[in-house]
Amino acid sequence: MSLPPLRLRKNEDRRLRAGHLWVFSNEVDVAATPLTAFEPGASAEVQDARGAPLGTAFVNPHSLIAARLVSRQRNRPLDGDLLRRRITRALALREAVFPGPFYRLVFGEGDGLPGLVVDRFGPHLVVQITTAGMERVLDEVIGALREIINPAGILLRNDTSGRALEGLESYVRTAWGEVPDTLRVEENGVTFDAPVAGQKTGWFYDHRMNRARMAGYVRGRRVLDVFSYVGGWGVQAAAAGASEVVCVDASAPALEWVARNAALNGAEDRVRAVRADAFDALGRMAADGERFGAVILDPPAFIKRRKDAKAGEEAYRRANTMAMELLEPDGILVSASCSYHLHRDGLLDAMLRASRRLGRDLQVLEEGHQGPDHPIHPAIPETAYLKSFIARVG
Amino acid sequence: MSLPPLRLRKNEDRRLRAGHLWVFSNEVDVAATPLTAFEPGASAEVQDARGAPLGTAFVNPHSLIAARLVSRQRNRPLDGDLLRRRITRALALREAVFPGPFYRLVFGEGDGLPGLVVDRFGPHLVVQITTAGMERVLDEVIGALREIINPAGILLRNDTSGRALEGLESYVRTAWGEVPDTLRVEENGVTFDAPVAGQKTGWFYDHRMNRARMAGYVRGRRVLDVFSYVGGWGVQAAAAGASEVVCVDASAPALEWVARNAALNGAEDRVRAVRADAFDALGRMAADGERFGAVILDPPAFIKRRKDAKAGEEAYRRANTMAMELLEPDGILVSASCSYHLHRDGLLDAMLRASRRLGRDLQVLEEGHQGPDHPIHPAIPETAYLKSFIARVG
Repeated sequence: MSLPPLRLRKNEDRRLRAGHLWVFSNEVDVAATPLTAFEPGASAEVQDARGAPLGTAFVNPHSLIAARLVSRQRNRPLDGDLLRRRITRALALREAVFPGPFYRLVFGEGDGLPGLVVDRFGPHLVVQITTAGMERVLDEVIGALREIINPAGILLRNDTSGRALEGLESYVRTAWGEVPDTLRVEENGVTFDAPVAGQKTGWFYDHRMNRARMAGYVRGRRVLDVFSYVGGWGVQAAAAGASEVVCVDASAPALEWVARNAALNGAEDRVRAVRADAFDALGRMAADGERFGAVILDPPAFIKRRKDAKAGEEAYRRANTMAMELLEPDGILVSASCSYHLHRDGLLDAMLRASRRLGRDLQVLEEGHQGPDHPIHPAIPETAYLKSFIARVG
Repeated sequence: MSLPPLRLRKNEDRRLRAGHLWVFSNEVDVAATPLTAFEPGASAEVQDARGAPLGTAFVNPHSLIAARLVSRQRNRPLDGDLLRRRITRALALREAVFPGPFYRLVFGEGDGLPGLVVDRFGPHLVVQITTAGMERVLDEVIGALREIINPAGILLRNDTSGRALEGLESYVRTAWGEVPDTLRVEENGVTFDAPVAGQKTGWFYDHRMNRARMAGYVRGRRVLDVFSYVGGWGVQAAAAGASEVVCVDASAPALEWVARNAALNGAEDRVRAVRADAFDALGRMAADGERFGAVILDPPAFIKRRKDAKAGEEAYRRANTMAMELLEPDGILVSASCSYHLHRDGLLDAMLRASRRLGRDLQVLEEGHQGPDHPIHPAIPETAYLKSFIARVG
């Protein structure tokens, strides 16, 4: 039994041959193979304009990304066997690199599994699905995860905004076993509790290595953690010997978790939580003449869509300027961005402009990226979204 | 007493105001302030076209880079006082970050000291000077280093090719005390001896962090270290638990140091040194069906000048293809480039093309850069030259 073909227009096979996995809807020869003939998530054989096979994909006629390659072989749809192989490969990588079962187990295209994200919290898994093709094999995904990981519980956090683009409904439910409200995380030797009802899957594993590097710069320093969420940076700074840590976040629940996590690591006397809008807090502290030995600036994405780029860049410049103003001479700035649309040179430029405006010298000491549990697909720039810098500000 | 002016042409102050430190010769208003009036290395007050001061620089009328800013203040030439301040700041950064006295103590423009490189090997310093301005204050440099570090010896390795561009002669001499032929290095907990008469200053501190990251991927694997020099990567791979390490280099003396360094760390039974041209060796091992669990590819700069870019890119593609061919399934490739003219996207592209040619999936797990003892000046792209990737090859 062979899969129905999805024919590309002339020359539109080039990106796939160069390594990419996506087919955009305007690249399909819809006269030959109408997209409307496919159900969302159905499998197809992608062919070039001459009919030569390029591999197997799943199709979504309602999405700008009309098809995503799951294999360069013919007749190799995303079934239980392929899912098990890919998840097993993903697991082998994490087990080789990390000391414990706390990581992003599956990172979508980076692990050859378009639209599937799985975060592991010891015996519990939190799953996010963002493509119709992956949603269609949801039962097989859960089955493969049970077989390979044998988890105590699997939660589906299928309430991300990206699902609407694929025509998928929004829901949260436990797909297997039980998942508690609180997830335990160990990162860089520091213990955290994270709320399963929190941001994303509850925890941001992507900054693990950047937090580890940050730890080398904060001993004995007074540290400000802006946009702290549950204290991933701030509590690790305290554990690394910061003399005092101030965590600022707009969310009262997040700050309760900061206090809890500080206490978990015996640092409750050195970690203070301040509920405020980040920009308001930065401005007020500057007016009060407060100074820090290190400021950590890890904001939510200021640029969510390309059209927001200009306003977003201005926000990064403003935040970095305000952060630098609070730094004592030769203070350390940790500045991050998770906006895919802000190139790393853009973040560096925001930092440089801020330093020039303030007449302070900037030395970039380290550049950071997402960790190895977020592998980058080198042909798909969208899989590389995280950037951070550690700089000294004279 | 005020310094003689160096007047810029209209709008040529923009780069300096944006943070850069260099003035190119064609940006100088030579009618108003002839470059020929300056002796190599003399100090000047840089002014914009209207005469507004931009700071203090040293001048070299014989160089394409006609002046280098040493301060944004007026009348602040590079004297003993400024040298001591800058070196003290550089030292404070290294002492905060590194566990022992083994690092690049001064990294030129990145530390506000254009044309000065100082590598520290415990009690010994190896100095390289590449600008006329820095050569002119050589005695003050040595004096400041003696005062701040109190070293047992200072060696001047002033035999780099870049000196000719500044009209400086080539020489090597001991400037203070005694420097032995062998320098002891400790890096990431591994001990090395390096030859003071070897490449550059004898050791490449810039890859320290990348080697530390590599160590997490090689346990139990058979490792190939191509262009091994004295074994910085290979011996650290052995120390990290590689089952066997093969070091390939064209230099017989370098390979003697590989053996010595393997023995220093009790790994002489797992490290083998092969003298060969790297490309020859890669081809021969492929023909022999040899396979490795990890290949480390850290070649010398294939692109030394911009005009070599095309041939150099081809060399990177070829080397990466040949390295991948030797990898077993899901093997680890560590691929680096120290060519400033090869952008990191260019190295990634070489790796991607190699993987596509071989029909193998590539996952980029980590991106690396020069370490914090090579601080980047964010306005001077030339100060960021080192890039590396750790990838899994399916």
